Amino acid sequence: MRFLVFVLVVGFAGAARADAGMWTFDHFPAGQMKAAYGWAPDQAWMTHVRLSSLMIPGDCSASFVSGDGLVMTNHHCARDCILAQSDKDHDYIADGFYAAALKDERPCSGFELDGLDSITDVTTRIDAATKGKSGKGFEDAQRAAIAAVEAECGGGDAVTCQVVTLYHGGVYDLYKYRRYTDVRLVFSVEDDAANFGGDPDNFEYPRYDIDVTFLRVYVDGKPYHPADHFRFAAVPVTAGQAVVTSGTPESTQRDDTVAQLEFIRDYDHPIWLQFISEQVGMLWEMQHENAEMHRESLSDYFYAMNTLKAFQGEEAALVSGPLLAQKQAAEDALRKQVAADPKLAADAGAWDRIAAAQVYERGIYQRLALLDEFPDGEMPDDVRQAKELLRYAAEIGKPNGERLQDYQDANLPATKEDITASGQDYPAVDKEYWAWWLTDMRFYLGADDPDVKAVLGKESPEQIAGEIVGGTTLADAGVRAKLLAGGPAAIAASDDPLLVFMRRLDGPARKVLMDWSDHVDAVETRDSGLIARAKFALYGTAQAPDGTLTPRLSYGAVQGYEQDGKFVAPFTDFAGAFGRATGEEPFKLPPRWVKAQAAGMDMATSLDMVTTNDIVGGNSGSPVIDKNGDLVGLVFDGNIQSLGGSFGFDPAVNRAVAVDVTALKLALTTIYHADRLVKEMAE
Amino acid sequence: MRFLVFVLVVGFAGAARADAGMWTFDHFPAGQMKAAYGWAPDQAWMTHVRLSSLMIPGDCSASFVSGDGLVMTNHHCARDCILAQSDKDHDYIADGFYAAALKDERPCSGFELDGLDSITDVTTRIDAATKGKSGKGFEDAQRAAIAAVEAECGGGDAVTCQVVTLYHGGVYDLYKYRRYTDVRLVFSVEDDAANFGGDPDNFEYPRYDIDVTFLRVYVDGKPYHPADHFRFAAVPVTAGQAVVTSGTPESTQRDDTVAQLEFIRDYDHPIWLQFISEQVGMLWEMQHENAEMHRESLSDYFYAMNTLKAFQGEEAALVSGPLLAQKQAAEDALRKQVAADPKLAADAGAWDRIAAAQVYERGIYQRLALLDEFPDGEMPDDVRQAKELLRYAAEIGKPNGERLQDYQDANLPATKEDITASGQDYPAVDKEYWAWWLTDMRFYLGADDPDVKAVLGKESPEQIAGEIVGGTTLADAGVRAKLLAGGPAAIAASDDPLLVFMRRLDGPARKVLMDWSDHVDAVETRDSGLIARAKFALYGTAQAPDGTLTPRLSYGAVQGYEQDGKFVAPFTDFAGAFGRATGEEPFKLPPRWVKAQAAGMDMATSLDMVTTNDIVGGNSGSPVIDKNGDLVGLVFDGNIQSLGGSFGFDPAVNRAVAVDVTALKLALTTIYHADRLVKEMAE
Repeated sequence: MRFLVFVLVVGFAGAARADAGMWTFDHFPAGQMKAAYGWAPDQAWMTHVRLSSLMIPGDCSASFVSGDGLVMTNHHCARDCILAQSDKDHDYIADGFYAAALKDERPCSGFELDGLDSITDVTTRIDAATKGKSGKGFEDAQRAAIAAVEAECGGGDAVTCQVVTLYHGGVYDLYKYRRYTDVRLVFSVEDDAANFGGDPDNFEYPRYDIDVTFLRVYVDGKPYHPADHFRFAAVPVTAGQAVVTSGTPESTQRDDTVAQLEFIRDYDHPIWLQFISEQVGMLWEMQHENAEMHRESLSDYFYAMNTLKAFQGEEAALVSGPLLAQKQAAEDALRKQVAADPKLAADAGAWDRIAAAQVYERGIYQRLALLDEFPDGEMPDDVRQAKELLRYAAEIGKPNGERLQDYQDANLPATKEDITASGQDYPAVDKEYWAWWLTDMRFYLGADDPDVKAVLGKESPEQIAGEIVGGTTLADAGVRAKLLAGGPAAIAASDDPLLVFMRRLDGPARKVLMDWSDHVDAVETRDSGLIARAKFALYGTAQAPDGTLTPRLSYGAVQGYEQDGKFVAPFTDFAGAFGRATGEEPFKLPPRWVKAQAAGMDMATSLDMVTTNDIVGGNSGSPVIDKNGDLVGLVFDGNIQSLGGSFGFDPAVNRAVAVDVTALKLALTTIYHADRLVKEMAE
Repeated sequence: MRFLVFVLVVGFAGAARADAGMWTFDHFPAGQMKAAYGWAPDQAWMTHVRLSSLMIPGDCSASFVSGDGLVMTNHHCARDCILAQSDKDHDYIADGFYAAALKDERPCSGFELDGLDSITDVTTRIDAATKGKSGKGFEDAQRAAIAAVEAECGGGDAVTCQVVTLYHGGVYDLYKYRRYTDVRLVFSVEDDAANFGGDPDNFEYPRYDIDVTFLRVYVDGKPYHPADHFRFAAVPVTAGQAVVTSGTPESTQRDDTVAQLEFIRDYDHPIWLQFISEQVGMLWEMQHENAEMHRESLSDYFYAMNTLKAFQGEEAALVSGPLLAQKQAAEDALRKQVAADPKLAADAGAWDRIAAAQVYERGIYQRLALLDEFPDGEMPDDVRQAKELLRYAAEIGKPNGERLQDYQDANLPATKEDITASGQDYPAVDKEYWAWWLTDMRFYLGADDPDVKAVLGKESPEQIAGEIVGGTTLADAGVRAKLLAGGPAAIAASDDPLLVFMRRLDGPARKVLMDWSDHVDAVETRDSGLIARAKFALYGTAQAPDGTLTPRLSYGAVQGYEQDGKFVAPFTDFAGAFGRATGEEPFKLPPRWVKAQAAGMDMATSLDMVTTNDIVGGNSGSPVIDKNGDLVGLVFDGNIQSLGGSFGFDPAVNRAVAVDVTALKLALTTIYHADRLVKEMAE
């Protein structure tokens, strides 16, 4: 999968509003929820939900749904695994997949699931290490302290530890996870069921999708028995009912300063919107080129369209929504209070320093995006993996605390896993990616740019693309594993053309990354922390922290909303799906559905629903949980209004979109006859 | 050719600055130029230049360069004609073209050249017709009056008349042109010579291109003898020398209000940047798909990249340049003066009304772009031609003054010419365009949008694309000519699938166009006129009007500039071209160049140059003229800094890029041995 790398800035939420907030397990606002809905989780509920919840690191959410390690998530969260099982004779994306017996379950290479084991507050320790420091000194000390804490905690491949920075450094929590790396594909629906409505319906509501896949965690080659798991609720969920989602929302920027949001609006988003639009156009044409290109570019096309729509929604929230004016008013008020407070006044310059860093960033961001972020986020997996191999070789000899974060001991297992994960090997598609990237590099930075000259030499993008894709063996996970095992010497000795190219790129890429790190990121990290602490001091702690791709809970209720003056009802049903079907992609229902309809399936059964839970990207696959700790839904999307969720939450119109568990029950029995799973989940 | 349709808003220039301004032939600031450069055109020079200059309507500039109707313009301005001559055995784009004898010259179908015959001020007459009117009444009356003036003036196919609105209605001038429609291809260089450096070097300097094509005007099947023509200057141009360009700059928006510029920055440009980026990606992939797709999409790819870079430059000027702050200060000052002046104070609400219209436009612009502008600007020619056929049928029965502008008697010959022009017929490429357009329509407006439903029905974009491209016969110019000749009845009777589709689109497209016309365009037209007149009253008339795609002069000098702290010299030479050549596209010089080099061509000969003349798009092909009225250069580009030229001109860094006539002389003799032309031009 190629996912987009954002400039991650953590922070804490703006003004508290009803139902807003993605809360940590250890600071859930039970009182607030109880006041709103008459009930709130108790400790037993909390533990049950934590032990049953899973994250797909950096990507999606999931949950255990049986005592034998069965896992439920979205079809689109396991797409690469489903695709990897497919070959020219089997198209499991199109046709779905079902392992009729345990032995038929298929390994998902490189797929990881993590379960949250414990949270420990380590703020005092990190603060002690950074006390009195600033700039690069602050960053280095913080990194070293975090690395030390993580190193002490982690041990072996089965555990991973992460110090999570909350409230811009107001709180540092050590999150300890169990890692599951033997994950197998059990069941998936057809793409036409998971993704009915395709791009036109993506981020829209009403919807009619069953976006579900079942996986299974194995340990020591046997189905794993988790400490706890969810069960499907016996009683269907109803409108107005209070529910909680458990998942791993991506990094949000709800506490960015106005200057930071303006940078995103005017520089960051516009650059990426252009790259992604070009990518969409390129992949779109590949979709029509021939059957092979179609198949090999389909997944990328899907992600690119999704990313494009998400970026457009975010940008729209900044350009035309009331958000920036609200943020400006709140910021003005806070700045006045800070300036007037003798204990805080010394920090009053933080906003202006952040604003100055944004001005600096304008001059370097395009280069950073093209040289350092593009290969991670837009290119085939082996490009990122080659970069990681080189960085591994460069970092591994350094003391733990001085290494780049991904190469510190606590993160090494995950990084190694990523380096050696098997991926797709689509030379024809990859060659186009390469030529596109290098063409854009030259187009945007200019043919006379010293970095471009250093990277391209006198060759054309197409020539370099041909040489690399034609000559590299790094698409083979075994080759990467061997280089990794061989260590820095083996990596340095390789003359694989992909590694040779990435070595040539490394100088210019590192230079602009360090420039950004020193002049932008370090300033933002420190001064955002100052603002966050001032805000703590003034407003207290009853606010949720920004999303950090770590486990969170969000409460809300099943509820429709007003759009363009009309009420959008909270539930859809199977009859609606058939009414919307045209028989043509993307509005085509799978043959199994048509057959089930003919056989008398209850068409009034509820299908999808919307809830007021505050979710963002990363929440895909989140369980929707009722008062009893039982499953009532499976989050798979947000509506178009929720796309500004990175910057704020509007309870009037922001909605999570979920499959109703009632529909899952009906589908697994009547449509898919997945009797083995139904039986297992009922046990 | 597919060129982009902008929302055209005419106006007059901001603060007068040295060398800024694209002046009309009848109001050239001779005193100002003389003060700056010691000389200025006299009446004889003016007449000579006017009679020798030509425009390619709506597109480029050109000039007569012999007494036998030989015409010089840019290679990229005649690209479609060169391409139309090519077939599977002859690639004249790649190899160049040379008609060794008069009989070998090839007709350029649909190609038109216009020469300015006279300018007559008709302000009093138009003002009398619109007196006391506003809104739609104002627009209708103005349109009727303009149509009447143009109808009186025009007669036959050999003459075209246009009322040009200058200073937002401060001045209405009747421009009468001689039309030349039998234009033939005489000579063109290789693409590698015209376009050396390709996209990476486009809008950059230093440059090393000879972007030239020679055409010839025929009348009654014989070479035409123009009243006057240019000659190549005997003495090479030197740094610091004052020069004048003559050409047809496109519409500029230098007098837009800040609210209008903000709309362009936040809505108009971002939407088109996304469409064009998608288009670039799609065409980019076609470039690599196979030889046929490569050839058939090459020209479109070229234009799309050019448009993308131009839009990026314009957007950058609005986002990060000092322009908006300067405009805001000027606007604030003007508004104060207007409010304080008893005679003008009644117009003080104009700015707020324009601002309110921008807010209204936000809600409809995406729809307008997708339904009405996209088919004109982004799609294959026959789509626009089908739309014109339908509008012709709808408009032709109305009284002249009530018709849409393009269908009024004065403009009918040009419209009919466009409808019947032969174009390319590339079904494979066209099918992709269709599917892309319809997919974007559904993606941006939503699958549930009533307009989208009305236009798409239950079919997929790919299905509709296949039906239209597979079934239409409108790519054949003869079919279009026959329908046009048959009139409304024949057009209504046609069941050509392209016409059937465009009929289905017409309702939704007209609806949003009328909405825009009534609530945005009418407000802007009237209130911009009020502002313009107030500005006249306060500041006088020594300012150039905004570009209106009509003949203009701009004075300046050959001069380098500072960029990133370095001086960019005004001239390049042939040695520089060979130094930059890598042998790989787009840095590959044609074999004829390499041969001439080997044969001892003088490598120190000057090649390209930059001048301070204020030019924008539409000036491509403009002659650069010296004191004697002789040619010293041929404009073919502007530097990257000049891309904000729609909104303002900065003499410090904005530069026109031209081929030095010295290079043309050398190339025509030593490289191309075009002896017939050299002899003809010397006569």
